[in-house]
Amino acid sequence: MIPFLDLERVNAPYMQRIEEAAIRVLRSGRYILGNEVDEFEKSFAAYCEAGYCIGTANGLDALTLILKAFAFPEKSEVIVPANTYIATVLPLSFLGLTPVFVEPEEVTMLLNPELIEDKITPSTKAIITADLYGRSCEMARILELANDYNLKVITDAAQAHGAAYFGKKTGSMAHATAFSFYPTKNLGALGDAGAVVTSDKELAQKIRYLRNYGSALRYQNEYKGMNSRLDEIQAAFLHVKLPYLDKENKRRRQMASRYLTEIQVKNLVLPPTDRIQEDAWHLFVVRHPDRTALIAFLEANGIQTDVHYPLPVHKQEAYKEYKSLKLPVTEKMHQEVLSLPLNPVLTEEELTYIIQTVNRFDA
Amino acid sequence: MIPFLDLERVNAPYMQRIEEAAIRVLRSGRYILGNEVDEFEKSFAAYCEAGYCIGTANGLDALTLILKAFAFPEKSEVIVPANTYIATVLPLSFLGLTPVFVEPEEVTMLLNPELIEDKITPSTKAIITADLYGRSCEMARILELANDYNLKVITDAAQAHGAAYFGKKTGSMAHATAFSFYPTKNLGALGDAGAVVTSDKELAQKIRYLRNYGSALRYQNEYKGMNSRLDEIQAAFLHVKLPYLDKENKRRRQMASRYLTEIQVKNLVLPPTDRIQEDAWHLFVVRHPDRTALIAFLEANGIQTDVHYPLPVHKQEAYKEYKSLKLPVTEKMHQEVLSLPLNPVLTEEELTYIIQTVNRFDA
Ligand SMILES: Cc1ncc(COP(=O)(O)O)c(/C=N/[C@H]2[C@@H](O)[C@@H](C)O[C@H](OP(=O)(O)OP(=O)(O)OC[C@H]3O[C@@H](n4cc(C)c(=O)[nH]c4=O)C[C@@H]3O)[C@@H]2O)c1O
Ligand SMILES: Cc1ncc(COP(=O)(O)O)c(/C=N/[C@H]2[C@@H](O)[C@@H](C)O[C@H](OP(=O)(O)OP(=O)(O)OC[C@H]3O[C@@H](n4cc(C)c(=O)[nH]c4=O)C[C@@H]3O)[C@@H]2O)c1O
Repeated sequence: MIPFLDLERVNAPYMQRIEEAAIRVLRSGRYILGNEVDEFEKSFAAYCEAGYCIGTANGLDALTLILKAFAFPEKSEVIVPANTYIATVLPLSFLGLTPVFVEPEEVTMLLNPELIEDKITPSTKAIITADLYGRSCEMARILELANDYNLKVITDAAQAHGAAYFGKKTGSMAHATAFSFYPTKNLGALGDAGAVVTSDKELAQKIRYLRNYGSALRYQNEYKGMNSRLDEIQAAFLHVKLPYLDKENKRRRQMASRYLTEIQVKNLVLPPTDRIQEDAWHLFVVRHPDRTALIAFLEANGIQTDVHYPLPVHKQEAYKEYKSLKLPVTEKMHQEVLSLPLNPVLTEEELTYIIQTVNRFDA
Repeated sequence: MIPFLDLERVNAPYMQRIEEAAIRVLRSGRYILGNEVDEFEKSFAAYCEAGYCIGTANGLDALTLILKAFAFPEKSEVIVPANTYIATVLPLSFLGLTPVFVEPEEVTMLLNPELIEDKITPSTKAIITADLYGRSCEMARILELANDYNLKVITDAAQAHGAAYFGKKTGSMAHATAFSFYPTKNLGALGDAGAVVTSDKELAQKIRYLRNYGSALRYQNEYKGMNSRLDEIQAAFLHVKLPYLDKENKRRRQMASRYLTEIQVKNLVLPPTDRIQEDAWHLFVVRHPDRTALIAFLEANGIQTDVHYPLPVHKQEAYKEYKSLKLPVTEKMHQEVLSLPLNPVLTEEELTYIIQTVNRFDA
């Protein structure tokens, strides 16, 4: 059986250094916002070609902190992709902001820039782009729109560590970018972790306070802040793994290339091939009208797949107030998408086997 | 120099088992909501003599999750102690609830039950008690009031692991209790961690979803939930330390007893002696009209102290809308309180030295 993702194998090459890092931090007696967090923040900001990085407890909190820092008035509207993981939208709800769902572009499945302008009203304050599957959104067009309408651009890059857009690193383009280091991500911690990346100095400073009870100096609270800190021990693990992210992403790109050139099945839609080298290939998402059959066929042949995601945000019980909203492109995608295994520890043989098996599927 | 708290020394007796636990978890490949969290939750619920425990990312989130689960209408009023750490109050602000500050009782410095009834209005939904310094609030009276007015009682027990109130364990009395396992707490993780404890099955279930994006089943979201999980690795550390909490609290009680019987200084007010054996003595907080002089004197004699806390919540910049509120008892306390070192690794010699030095203070 080829598992969709085997985290033990993914972390194995780093395990010795991860264990050493753990022991160093545990023995240091310093567990909250110390040197390990500082150093990782500096390295990750540099990696993203951005000014500042602020470690957070997770990716959802990173988005929440960005939105808190912008302090848009309640009921402000924020453009969000209809095709995304629910965590892109939840922070808006916490802060009394209104998500305005925009359909994806058919080929990339990402926020369709051509549909944004129509949704902008005097209450619109920001656009959230979600770089799903590891691919950057169409930032040129989106930044232009944001400039024209004086909107903030926030990127949810939970799935896109190390991606780029025409030479610009993810994290260097939006006003602020949220990363998740959930264990399954391209850069994954061994627990929950996240970060905000921005080049706006004041925003970075405010988020730094907001993640720490709103406190600048100990016991002095300027803002009504959260508690959302990156643990020292997780920062140390991330610091061990960061230097290998590019190498791992390169391996992901090679695998994606093989999939893209070698898979050929009737009715199976592959992801676009135009930006293989800049995509971080967090997931390799194909589409098929009879997804259930394809999943069963692969499973029967020892290949585990996954679905990212089966139910769109506006159809979740949590968002039942949007139940009657019609977003046909998004809804169709959620019925058809299927993620094939793609991660840096898959062997060429496993890859070949997956490709051959998929190509045998006939439905 | 006797440091106020030396975490390296505090954790030293457990360090070998902590390191073993770290390595076990790291090698397991399972980092989020697995067995370690499960097992710690069961043990901690049992320890608190309560039905359920739900691990969370930290203590502030634990309170936030409880309040989210109760889902009081916006602008509902919640009684909170005016003398507390700001994290007791922040979750109310996140959820659009109105804190109603109540002054502390002079001797215990905890929420004065006699002042609560006057503050109850038709909008009041809950009372938050904060068991500051490790001492339980007057639960009999508070639960009676809550019963009379149909209010929920929520305890912030960030500082009171293992405390009790007339034989009832902290965590077993309120409708829901929030714990922090911040590293400096009586039961401290080696990073951020927290938990909710409750005996209400439905509430526990809802909080379980709410800490995990509001999700019951994978990718199905019933509620607009947060991301606030206890890390597997931190759960494993807590599980190593929990069996020793009672022994450590006993040691704290012995030290508190010595302080209480041996310290005698003009104008120095000691904590109450009536419940030494049920207090968890997270902090030993004395009061002196010339705190600054006392701090300087102790510092000059090699004793580090701390102040919990220097500025009340309603005087924080973050709560400037309450700036003109007059809470004289609280304000006076914040000017006079001083925490002497008290933690399980202080030696009898150090204790004797602290007592003798304090007793030499004359101002
Ligand atoms: C666009 C976007 N925005 C914001 C966020 C929110 O970020 P966070 O707040 O940091 O979660 C996400 C997160 N997105 C993540 C998370 O929300 C997560 C809970 O679910 C999905 O990720 P994924 O499908 O990879 O996670 P999973 O836990 O189901 O694990 C997948 C496989 O990996 C294996 N596994 C997993 C774990 C955790 C393990 O320890 N060991 C192991 O063997 C078991 C499973 O078969 C989401 O894509 C996002 O995609
Ligand atoms: C009533 C109540 N409700 C809710 C909460 C919120 O809970 P959490 O959300 O879990 O924080 C609190 C938390 N309360 C805590 C926390 O909010 C914390 C940031 O500040 C205070 O705790 P404390 O004064 O012990 O913390 P500190 O970081 O200043 O450390 C004290 C000493 O310990 C040393 N130290 C500390 C750390 C962290 C270390 O790694 N190594 C080390 O050597 C250095 C310092 O000299 C609060 O009492 C509370 O008291």
